[in-house]
Amino acid sequence: MTRTVAAIVARTPDGPLEPGVVERREVGPRDVRIDVVWAGICHSDIHTVRGDWGAQTYPLAVGHEIAGVVAEVGAQVEGLAVGQRVGVGCMVGSCRDCANCRAGREQYCERGFTDTYGARDADGTITQGGYAASIVVDEHFVLSLPDALPFEKVAPLLCAGITTYSPLRRWGAGPGVRVAVVGMGGLGHMAVKLAVAMGADVTVLSQTSSKRADALGFGAVAHHATSDPAVFDRLARSFDLIVNTVSASLDFDAYLGLLDFGGTMVNVGAPPEPAPVTLFTLFTNQRSFAGSTIGGIAETQEMLNFCAEHGIVPEVETIRADQVNDAWERVLKSDVRYRFVIDASTLKGPSGATAA
Amino acid sequence: MTRTVAAIVARTPDGPLEPGVVERREVGPRDVRIDVVWAGICHSDIHTVRGDWGAQTYPLAVGHEIAGVVAEVGAQVEGLAVGQRVGVGCMVGSCRDCANCRAGREQYCERGFTDTYGARDADGTITQGGYAASIVVDEHFVLSLPDALPFEKVAPLLCAGITTYSPLRRWGAGPGVRVAVVGMGGLGHMAVKLAVAMGADVTVLSQTSSKRADALGFGAVAHHATSDPAVFDRLARSFDLIVNTVSASLDFDAYLGLLDFGGTMVNVGAPPEPAPVTLFTLFTNQRSFAGSTIGGIAETQEMLNFCAEHGIVPEVETIRADQVNDAWERVLKSDVRYRFVIDASTLKGPSGATAA
Repeated sequence: MTRTVAAIVARTPDGPLEPGVVERREVGPRDVRIDVVWAGICHSDIHTVRGDWGAQTYPLAVGHEIAGVVAEVGAQVEGLAVGQRVGVGCMVGSCRDCANCRAGREQYCERGFTDTYGARDADGTITQGGYAASIVVDEHFVLSLPDALPFEKVAPLLCAGITTYSPLRRWGAGPGVRVAVVGMGGLGHMAVKLAVAMGADVTVLSQTSSKRADALGFGAVAHHATSDPAVFDRLARSFDLIVNTVSASLDFDAYLGLLDFGGTMVNVGAPPEPAPVTLFTLFTNQRSFAGSTIGGIAETQEMLNFCAEHGIVPEVETIRADQVNDAWERVLKSDVRYRFVIDASTLKGPSGATAA
Repeated sequence: MTRTVAAIVARTPDGPLEPGVVERREVGPRDVRIDVVWAGICHSDIHTVRGDWGAQTYPLAVGHEIAGVVAEVGAQVEGLAVGQRVGVGCMVGSCRDCANCRAGREQYCERGFTDTYGARDADGTITQGGYAASIVVDEHFVLSLPDALPFEKVAPLLCAGITTYSPLRRWGAGPGVRVAVVGMGGLGHMAVKLAVAMGADVTVLSQTSSKRADALGFGAVAHHATSDPAVFDRLARSFDLIVNTVSASLDFDAYLGLLDFGGTMVNVGAPPEPAPVTLFTLFTNQRSFAGSTIGGIAETQEMLNFCAEHGIVPEVETIRADQVNDAWERVLKSDVRYRFVIDASTLKGPSGATAA
């Protein structure tokens, strides 16, 4: 028996989000039903609904930064109990059998992981995301939220947090490592906080100086406005690692020129069109141009525990469900410091649906 | 007092090479005069003369794969003696003072290293390369040639050898590491031999099957002709490291798709135009797209010693000086297995110049 729950849904690629409902499957033996309490807004939500990354099936509820409370567990679920605070990020399934899945890298599942929303699920339905009163998820893809993390702020860690944590770990951010973070939005501000906590020397490169005080407040040692082209000469060969969180196309060669010997520019945001990179720029200093996307489930838990240990949380602005269209407009204008989180208790389904 | 020595020179970007002369400086306190015995032909020689990489000053003698014998040493030279077999590669100078130079990475000198030919030298003259009877070089840029390496085959190690050795070392080629080598010309065949000697599982990807037997003979475990597009599906996610030795533009995304988790495609050949790379392809498996150029002096000596220890030499075709124009034509048609080496004893200067 499926369950109809209140949600915020897109009915078309271009229209506003509206109150609606989504269907949730019955809780299977390894499933967990989670009452959503907080749902973060990610730029990906907007790209997906607008069809920027491919056609979608509507109505669609998006949202892949989900913090909630376990409401029901399947018979075979271990380690998760009703009443526990949990999180769900960008994945709700993967094959669990390929080399990457077996190594805990479900995000690189060779058959493709199942996105939290807009993806064909194992039962043939289209997954529906976290802008909803509840969600049913295989326990493997459910994270424990450490008590030390304030509930209303934790949701963005499930996407913005892990997306920046994974490459920072992979490319060795730590003491003595000079890290530049390009763009200081939802992802970028987490990259700064995480890299600072890892002990790296962090510099923020953003278009203007408007976020300089914030950057320094988060622990960055420097902030430079890239609207001044002289910055690229001044900072040539200054960094070991650049984490690019900007989704728009950049002058990638200019940024690569900032890398010292052996340095890597890792992109976690991406324009859909190919990035032109001059190989002669990569030749110098044995530079690398790389990509990374979210992280595995075990790594995501590690990130949550790291944040709890170091007292790291995203900066958030909490909103009611009826403010979500305004919030999307503000995301598109980069007018948010630094992540919107929807209070799911304010969800109202259309006439006839209940809040949970 | 400069010394006029016989050489093969280009007098124009487009004309044939001709017998000529170059001037060599007096041997300074830290200089070594080397009688050239063997000079390898690198595709870069042709690109440089043709002006593909920028305008040149003519007449110009190229050649940066030089094997010879020490003929004279400056008063302060240590560790090199008259009569010793030595080599010179792509560099004859660098600032010796920047962080990279101090770390033994002269090839990434922050002020730019001095190319063996076609570069402005410290004394204001234009450097002249190894297609010549002798050359004068600062001792720091002179390599010792191990006795175990056959003299007529060693020259290509100074460019083709170190250019592939450095990235193989940097990206960890060794037992259990799956390495693909793209293109099996001068550089590619050295990449195969070196990676095999390092213990890696080596696969050759080349346009046709014409070099399959050679690839397997060099120790590769497999060879695939990339003219069959099905190869890219069949080998998806199969390699940890791809060494691309092809200078022409490729479908870089197709090759990146062959990388398993954490894999790197390192380019040692490069088209002058920017390489279009789709970031979503890099996202998958945290892939990297990198570049590398030659190696430092200490690393070049390490490479020579490694080759001596493992019995690795390039496959060469030795030619007389008067065959160099034909050889260049054959290089342009990839009709060489795998490197031409000029016998410098066959050099004849124009009337009035001597062979050394």
